Amino acid sequence: MNGKHNFFMRRAIELAGQGMNLHAGGPFGAVIVKDGEIIAEGFNQVTSTNDPTAHAEVIAIREACKKLGSFQLDDCVIYTSCEPCPMCLGAIYWARPQKVFFACNREDAAQIDFDDRFIYNELAVDMKNRRIEFVELLREEAIPVFQEWKNRDDVKKY
Amino acid sequence: MNGKHNFFMRRAIELAGQGMNLHAGGPFGAVIVKDGEIIAEGFNQVTSTNDPTAHAEVIAIREACKKLGSFQLDDCVIYTSCEPCPMCLGAIYWARPQKVFFACNREDAAQIDFDDRFIYNELAVDMKNRRIEFVELLREEAIPVFQEWKNRDDVKKY
Repeated sequence: MNGKHNFFMRRAIELAGQGMNLHAGGPFGAVIVKDGEIIAEGFNQVTSTNDPTAHAEVIAIREACKKLGSFQLDDCVIYTSCEPCPMCLGAIYWARPQKVFFACNREDAAQIDFDDRFIYNELAVDMKNRRIEFVELLREEAIPVFQEWKNRDDVKKY
Repeated sequence: MNGKHNFFMRRAIELAGQGMNLHAGGPFGAVIVKDGEIIAEGFNQVTSTNDPTAHAEVIAIREACKKLGSFQLDDCVIYTSCEPCPMCLGAIYWARPQKVFFACNREDAAQIDFDDRFIYNELAVDMKNRRIEFVELLREEAIPVFQEWKNRDDVKKY
């Protein structure tokens, strides 16, 4: 059983190295498996595509969902060479796979100067103490759109 | 001063309604402003594109970065019709804009059955108590890739 998991994780680690060697972005790789087969792969492409959201997991999730024709990764397993950052963790929760395996952790990422741990800390502090300023504005004008969404029967709720 | 902020936020709220009416996805809109001008806009497109990462903020961030030719949103301000979910908050931290204005909050999103608050809670609990299982695997095989990244001079660090 573990041999299978090791096989997929080794592929994720291999992708991390490939992305680095191709100068695509940071040293991170991910694969998504369904029914024992890889259905999507990704490596970080932030610097080569000027897309701060182009993390390995996000790329693999978008690809897997495209392949499945669904915005949900039912019964899928994600293997990633590093613990997902908060952005990728959020993406994972929205996609709802069954399980996630990771190799390095957020402390390891901090050791090579990636902000994962810093962002995790920022999420945990009160909004008014964050390093990026967040300000509420015109909530009363936005609420009616939410109410309309709730009251309508012709929208695809998820 | 506030008139300007209100103007941009009203555009974000308008986009939220437009996306809903177009059946693109959930009722969420965002705009990104630099030097007093809108450089990117987005509305949620999750259900229409089968992309769980296609939130208003992510779409606007990707578009703005493309336009600026950079993976950083220096001196930009984001206006979003709802407090960013953890995924979008992570994307915002990676993009590093100056400031974020939001209208509805995570409690309002929960009221119309979106998982933002649930995901915020999941991020805060210990990994072993999460609703999606996270398992460490082969860390010792992934660490050398990180070490190589740190030791190389020919990679674009960020």
